[in-house]
Amino acid sequence: MPTAADITAFLAKEFPQTKCTVESVGDCAATVRHEVGVAELRPGGTVSGPVLMEVADVALYVAILGEIGIVPLTVTTNLNINFLRMPSSKAAIVGVCKLLKIGRSLAVGEVSLYSEGSDAPVAHVVGTYSIPPSARASAAPSTGPAS
Amino acid sequence: MPTAADITAFLAKEFPQTKCTVESVGDCAATVRHEVGVAELRPGGTVSGPVLMEVADVALYVAILGEIGIVPLTVTTNLNINFLRMPSSKAAIVGVCKLLKIGRSLAVGEVSLYSEGSDAPVAHVVGTYSIPPSARASAAPSTGPAS
Amino acid sequence: MPTAADITAFLAKEFPQTKCTVESVGDCAATVRHEVGVAELRPGGTVSGPVLMEVADVALYVAILGEIGIVPLTVTTNLNINFLRMPSSKAAIVGVCKLLKIGRSLAVGEVSLYSEGSDAPVAHVVGTYSIPPSARASAAPSTGPAS
Amino acid sequence: MPTAADITAFLAKEFPQTKCTVESVGDCAATVRHEVGVAELRPGGTVSGPVLMEVADVALYVAILGEIGIVPLTVTTNLNINFLRMPSSKAAIVGVCKLLKIGRSLAVGEVSLYSEGSDAPVAHVVGTYSIPPSARASAAPSTGPAS
Repeated sequence: MPTAADITAFLAKEFPQTKCTVESVGDCAATVRHEVGVAELRPGGTVSGPVLMEVADVALYVAILGEIGIVPLTVTTNLNINFLRMPSSKAAIVGVCKLLKIGRSLAVGEVSLYSEGSDAPVAHVVGTYSIPPSARASAAPSTGPAS
Repeated sequence: MPTAADITAFLAKEFPQTKCTVESVGDCAATVRHEVGVAELRPGGTVSGPVLMEVADVALYVAILGEIGIVPLTVTTNLNINFLRMPSSKAAIVGVCKLLKIGRSLAVGEVSLYSEGSDAPVAHVVGTYSIPPSARASAAPSTGPAS
Repeated sequence: MPTAADITAFLAKEFPQTKCTVESVGDCAATVRHEVGVAELRPGGTVSGPVLMEVADVALYVAILGEIGIVPLTVTTNLNINFLRMPSSKAAIVGVCKLLKIGRSLAVGEVSLYSEGSDAPVAHVVGTYSIPPSARASAAPSTGPAS
Repeated sequence: MPTAADITAFLAKEFPQTKCTVESVGDCAATVRHEVGVAELRPGGTVSGPVLMEVADVALYVAILGEIGIVPLTVTTNLNINFLRMPSSKAAIVGVCKLLKIGRSLAVGEVSLYSEGSDAPVAHVVGTYSIPPSARASAAPSTGPAS
């Protein structure tokens, strides 16, 4: 299975615009980090919603690739986000993903998003990715964290 | 704050149809349980989706009442459920709720649903409840598990 | 493709507990109806949330079966409901489903739920069903309402 | 109530990073548009998910401001997105929002996202915004499209 470095190299090619870095991956989980600067802020000093959604989406993607291997055609089908608290303008956003299921065709996971250094999540996401049939043929997906 | 017995008595009055029992409540969390019998099953031997949704809804409600007190007008505004694995036809459904936020007007929590005795969640729910202004005046909601 | 009568007969076998009736089906849409009586009400005189969720789930299922044929293993994977207004205790619940996509493995649709006779939706649902591979082999799913 | 020009001026100040333009607003609805260029694309030639989420979020915000007036502290609390079809790399993204409810404290709406010139939605979003108490005092929110 790919390492954090493998996935980082893949993301740099697949998502060249993303500023997310892979902090850890494995065991049906992943942690990613996104620096916060002027481009990520809204007036009033909070991180914009689309930045939070991107971090969650990347965290899910990284966690899934860590289980099924580098499968580029794995795509998000559903993402549900609840915004909980105003993020700090002075801290990076950290996304901590735990997978709930890795099936043959669908993977589901949840992501808690934090302002780095705080224990209170700023947002919570649950998302589903569709895994293409070719990936299922070549890789044997695990059955997830709890089966 | 109300005990599990207080909330059980309240549920018997407010939701007389529910078969859910309160196993525990407190610390921004709750566990509820729903027996599975013929009325809960679909042909093929799986628990019907609406039963899972009801258990999650009650688990969220109980966890919130455990923090803000017995506030009947607290109502669900949003509920998002992902069905993960087929539940057993021979086990009760257990819902384990953790609150993500208790604000002045909204409370958000997640619920993992299990077939009793299994570690693999059969479904995962995130839901939001609206707390009426009167409750906010009389009770001082905590700021949630992680603030 | 199956008629409303075909699907009604199938539901009576597959979901013997449901009180939903199929009002219409076809053209990537369906309308279902659920009588409201004592069993569906909560004290205070409103229809319980799980009843609304069930009506939405059945409306989606019926609309999908109307496109792909009677495929019993088609199962809900995700359902997101927003509760908008308090339903009347004296009117049936009507669910009007429009499909947004029918793909090879996933179908997505939205459902507006009404108290019969009112134009204001009491709830809105978006749901996803997974279509089993066998169905995809034997039936040629349409590409949905808008492709 | 504010015009499209009023809201455009407000967005330029509040969301200086957004490339969304307001095409129309009013009657519990709004249409916004986002040009697609290199910054919005992923390798393989599709529009990135966070761009779609941003367009939906702005469409909801614009539709709500069109009903309650320019209320800066109105914030997204929940957003649920289903990705339906691959967007074109050569067309702008258009978001068409219809509000489902405007209450005193919460507004709910749905957004269909299109590649400009196509009738098939590329994604569908349902979102909730929280309206601050001050806005409720100074403005009298309408009761939504269908009450």
